[in-house]
Amino acid sequence: MSNNTKLFQDYLQSIVQKEEPAGLYQPISYLLQLGGKRIRPLLTLMAVDIFNGKPEGGLPAALAVELFHNFTLMHDDIMDEAPLRRGQPTVHEKWDLNTGILSGDAMLIQAYQSLEAYPDLLFGRLTRLLSRTAIEVCEGQQYDVDFETQTQVSQEAYLEMIRLKTAVLVGCALKMGAVIGGAAEEDAQAIYDFGVLLGTAFQIQDDYLDAFGDPKIFGKQVGGDILENKKTILYHQAMIQGSVEDQRILTEWFSKKTTASVSEEKIKIVKLLFDSSGATEATKALVVQYTEAAFEKLETIQIDTQSKVHLKVFGQNLMERKF
Amino acid sequence: MSNNTKLFQDYLQSIVQKEEPAGLYQPISYLLQLGGKRIRPLLTLMAVDIFNGKPEGGLPAALAVELFHNFTLMHDDIMDEAPLRRGQPTVHEKWDLNTGILSGDAMLIQAYQSLEAYPDLLFGRLTRLLSRTAIEVCEGQQYDVDFETQTQVSQEAYLEMIRLKTAVLVGCALKMGAVIGGAAEEDAQAIYDFGVLLGTAFQIQDDYLDAFGDPKIFGKQVGGDILENKKTILYHQAMIQGSVEDQRILTEWFSKKTTASVSEEKIKIVKLLFDSSGATEATKALVVQYTEAAFEKLETIQIDTQSKVHLKVFGQNLMERKF
Repeated sequence: MSNNTKLFQDYLQSIVQKEEPAGLYQPISYLLQLGGKRIRPLLTLMAVDIFNGKPEGGLPAALAVELFHNFTLMHDDIMDEAPLRRGQPTVHEKWDLNTGILSGDAMLIQAYQSLEAYPDLLFGRLTRLLSRTAIEVCEGQQYDVDFETQTQVSQEAYLEMIRLKTAVLVGCALKMGAVIGGAAEEDAQAIYDFGVLLGTAFQIQDDYLDAFGDPKIFGKQVGGDILENKKTILYHQAMIQGSVEDQRILTEWFSKKTTASVSEEKIKIVKLLFDSSGATEATKALVVQYTEAAFEKLETIQIDTQSKVHLKVFGQNLMERKF
Repeated sequence: MSNNTKLFQDYLQSIVQKEEPAGLYQPISYLLQLGGKRIRPLLTLMAVDIFNGKPEGGLPAALAVELFHNFTLMHDDIMDEAPLRRGQPTVHEKWDLNTGILSGDAMLIQAYQSLEAYPDLLFGRLTRLLSRTAIEVCEGQQYDVDFETQTQVSQEAYLEMIRLKTAVLVGCALKMGAVIGGAAEEDAQAIYDFGVLLGTAFQIQDDYLDAFGDPKIFGKQVGGDILENKKTILYHQAMIQGSVEDQRILTEWFSKKTTASVSEEKIKIVKLLFDSSGATEATKALVVQYTEAAFEKLETIQIDTQSKVHLKVFGQNLMERKF
């Protein structure tokens, strides 16, 4: 466990959740202690460390980011009707729908409250950044919902959805750390952009792994997106690069709800189409492209080489799923 | 329409909600334009006006309070499975559950964003007050849910639930206005306390009117709380003041789910018990007691007599449901 991981875990443990009403606060503690990789709070601490060498100053912001992220998980799990989160029952399953809604609301408010540890000027900047990010994440979630029922979604629109739903929070986590660490405005913006590019690369890779990942390592059912007719980057690339016949077959498979009897066949055929159309390679190339763009952005930041290496290694580990 | 009402309505109209994604923002505009009495934003503007004579300076805070209030309505309506709000379909009915959750989340974030109109120091104070109030409202909602299934709830616990769920937001609306108007800390606190007391009186009266109000004026089904076995102040007072026999009958009626065949009889008997036990009079007396305590608190504030009269008349109109 890295120093910063321990720093954050200790801080999380030391934050005593209010005990009453238990129906409101227990679900929050439950979800927070299910674990997860804590990628976002670690990025906040790392950014503070890079700019002023005192990562502990980033703890309240790191907690705000983690609380916000877990708020989105609690509400998204309701919307997705997900029974499990990290192998354990989701909050709305273990308790009920109303608990999932209300405890989620409280978590969002607690994210804001966590920032109250900072003096006014800093509090103002961090709170504005949290709000802007939070509303963008809601917009991303809405687009994701919208795309489920839209037949025509452009790759551009899909990438914008990913940016809003997933990537801006990675940027926000890093920028909060930079702001707390006293970074210059351009550097804070550049590290935000680095985070957004890396977060986008991560999500595109997630789409790729959903179809082609090793289920033992990836930890999800392979082909889940295909069964749900989710128009991920693989689908967009196949529609862009595939033959007219490829497009026809793909459109047909993706226009009907998947029945149990055809699910294996569907995954097999669609994956073959992804390969033959060039979509698989193109998607892998996009991951590399966004990752490299992130690393290029990193080069523009006025920090020492060691810090850049540090961020780059973190990014590489993230992309290699070494968490 | 008072000047401040017009000021707020014009401001609300001028706030252009983002249009895309429509699935996120249309439900927000829909709920906001259903109307309502706008009591809370008016209190904010009135408080600013009293302390510095420039009510328009309170508009962003008034909007924050109204957005927050409507966020709670959107999520509470889901939790209560309410089909109608102000005579129109609720958001989760008109759209769906997921829309009610996500657009509600966005509204809470927009409430925070509305405060960004203020300079840092003020922004910090108002945001902290909003967060504290918001988390208390969540706690109040949780207690309300908890009490539905608890057989033993003390009147003290019930009053605390009312304070959290309803009254603190009235206090917050007024205190925000006072802070923006540059009030001294003691005055800002006193006007907060005034609001909490008035809000409590209002909610107790709401309990009374639910059983004894004129349905034409009150606009709700008379006896709804009785049918739902809701242990309001009337129930608590009947249990405190009634005979052992009164308590036995009441406990029996409130321990079974109401079936359609007995609902009229139940309302009739329970209301008779409320009257005969002295609960009806005691509840009316509590309304007077809280209202008078509010007006006494008003006397301690360092503002001119005319402003006090203004606030008192507003409070009296509110209690007489002249809105």
